[in-house]
Amino acid sequence: MLQPIGDRVIIEVEDQPEETVGGIVLADNAKEKPTQGKVVAVGAGRVLDSGERVAPVVQEGDNVMFDKYAGTKVNYADQEYLVMHENDLLAIVK
Amino acid sequence: MLQPIGDRVIIEVEDQPEETVGGIVLADNAKEKPTQGKVVAVGAGRVLDSGERVAPVVQEGDNVMFDKYAGTKVNYADQEYLVMHENDLLAIVK
Amino acid sequence: MLQPIGDRVIIEVEDQPEETVGGIVLADNAKEKPTQGKVVAVGAGRVLDSGERVAPVVQEGDNVMFDKYAGTKVNYADQEYLVMHENDLLAIVK
Amino acid sequence: MLQPIGDRVIIEVEDQPEETVGGIVLADNAKEKPTQGKVVAVGAGRVLDSGERVAPVVQEGDNVMFDKYAGTKVNYADQEYLVMHENDLLAIVK
Amino acid sequence: MLQPIGDRVIIEVEDQPEETVGGIVLADNAKEKPTQGKVVAVGAGRVLDSGERVAPVVQEGDNVMFDKYAGTKVNYADQEYLVMHENDLLAIVK
Amino acid sequence: MLQPIGDRVIIEVEDQPEETVGGIVLADNAKEKPTQGKVVAVGAGRVLDSGERVAPVVQEGDNVMFDKYAGTKVNYADQEYLVMHENDLLAIVK
Amino acid sequence: MLQPIGDRVIIEVEDQPEETVGGIVLADNAKEKPTQGKVVAVGAGRVLDSGERVAPVVQEGDNVMFDKYAGTKVNYADQEYLVMHENDLLAIVK
Repeated sequence: MLQPIGDRVIIEVEDQPEETVGGIVLADNAKEKPTQGKVVAVGAGRVLDSGERVAPVVQEGDNVMFDKYAGTKVNYADQEYLVMHENDLLAIVK
Repeated sequence: MLQPIGDRVIIEVEDQPEETVGGIVLADNAKEKPTQGKVVAVGAGRVLDSGERVAPVVQEGDNVMFDKYAGTKVNYADQEYLVMHENDLLAIVK
Repeated sequence: MLQPIGDRVIIEVEDQPEETVGGIVLADNAKEKPTQGKVVAVGAGRVLDSGERVAPVVQEGDNVMFDKYAGTKVNYADQEYLVMHENDLLAIVK
Repeated sequence: MLQPIGDRVIIEVEDQPEETVGGIVLADNAKEKPTQGKVVAVGAGRVLDSGERVAPVVQEGDNVMFDKYAGTKVNYADQEYLVMHENDLLAIVK
Repeated sequence: MLQPIGDRVIIEVEDQPEETVGGIVLADNAKEKPTQGKVVAVGAGRVLDSGERVAPVVQEGDNVMFDKYAGTKVNYADQEYLVMHENDLLAIVK
Repeated sequence: MLQPIGDRVIIEVEDQPEETVGGIVLADNAKEKPTQGKVVAVGAGRVLDSGERVAPVVQEGDNVMFDKYAGTKVNYADQEYLVMHENDLLAIVK
Repeated sequence: MLQPIGDRVIIEVEDQPEETVGGIVLADNAKEKPTQGKVVAVGAGRVLDSGERVAPVVQEGDNVMFDKYAGTKVNYADQEYLVMHENDLLAIVK
């Protein structure tokens, strides 16, 4: 299990259907980077200068949108995840 | 439904009339980027260092102006929206 | 009506007399950018980290000076305005 | 009259004697930029995050030194002034 | 023993199996930089503006993930370690 | 007299002995920039966000060390001084 | 004696054995920059926005590690020292 640090969340990126151009399957690096995924773990939250910790608003299982350049890729148990700060999330898809 | 995170708002950009130059319809990337739209969702607001959350001043349904480079485009239910921080809005059109 | 967000003000730029060089009227982009105007709307003010909102010191109707690169141009009701943060104003002309 | 905004001060730059090199008067842009002047107006001061306003320490009439790149030039009533943040002043000349 | 300063942690990087390409062992600088390791020492934590010290959440012995560009390499007792700010850690592997 | 603003100090730079290379006196711009001097005036100190003013720790007459790129040169009464923020001083020489 | 300002520490860099490549002593600028040394003086500490001063955690005599680009070289009494902010230290070697 991965436990994100601070205000980070871990996101399982949605499988994207294979993209084809005129029947030809595109190479991985020719695909659009994903911008949607499912939150699989949430950190304890950011510590304010007042010493208070701000509880994250997203929760495990939330579907979220993010900028395609947000986050850091990590591999865990043969699966790829994105780790990003909660504030890099744009919106929860409900 | 999209629920914006923190101090973000989601904006439905106004349809712009097709631009033509001498009767020729311009390609999409030759159009001016939009700078006005309607707020369709508002986040819970920014958390101050004091721990207090600042309620946004814009509301669902407000018509707003923004800089043409503000925000991130997202697609949801076959419609394009802009997600931006409330502070990137310039003014409410009343 | 335009209601500026946060600590922004909306400024109606002074009409500048047509500039001529040896009797030839200069093109728009050869004119000096304006640095003076009249405040037509004032936002509610900036929120401090303490949660307090700082009331702006400029008021509707004030004549103000600003740097020629300050602000964002917006069009409203066929008139051009500048929107800028109150702190980008240099001085009130009394 | 010019009333500076926030922690700004307005400075009347000292007249500099015409500079000559071997009897030839130098063009304006070949002169050293001024670094000394007289404060002619003082803003209400900067607002701290605590909401408190810090009264400026310089006063109208003070002779001050500043970096030659500090401030913004403004014209008012056919005279040129410099507007700068109080904190860009280096020292009061007593 | 190394005692990290402030909010820093010291990480023993995991031994990575020798990488070979077609039977040829890769030179050190052709290997991927490690992104996982074990925390061997934890600093006292960051001091907030309120004067409070935030106790780190990672502990000695935790397995952690980090960005491959995070931290500074140090040598101690013939072993190489990474020193980084706790906030540069992405997640604890549990 | 020069009264520095805020957390600034005024430093009289130590006379440096003429540098010669093989008996040839070096031009001014070939000399090392000074890094030591005597504090001749001290500002009232920096104002914190809490509104409190931090009294400077250096005092008139202190010999101090600073980085060779720190500070701004000013001329006063035919003498050259350096004005810099107290925090740009490295150490007091006792 | 050198008394560092604020949160600075003064470090006596460890003598490094002469480096030779194939019996040839390397010139000074071909040596690795030192990353370890002994603290010889400690400043009073950094002042927080709350007005509180944070006492440094390192003490005179501590052996410390630092990044090879940290600090400013100063000469005092014919010996070279490094002056750096306490927060640029990586770890205390115990």
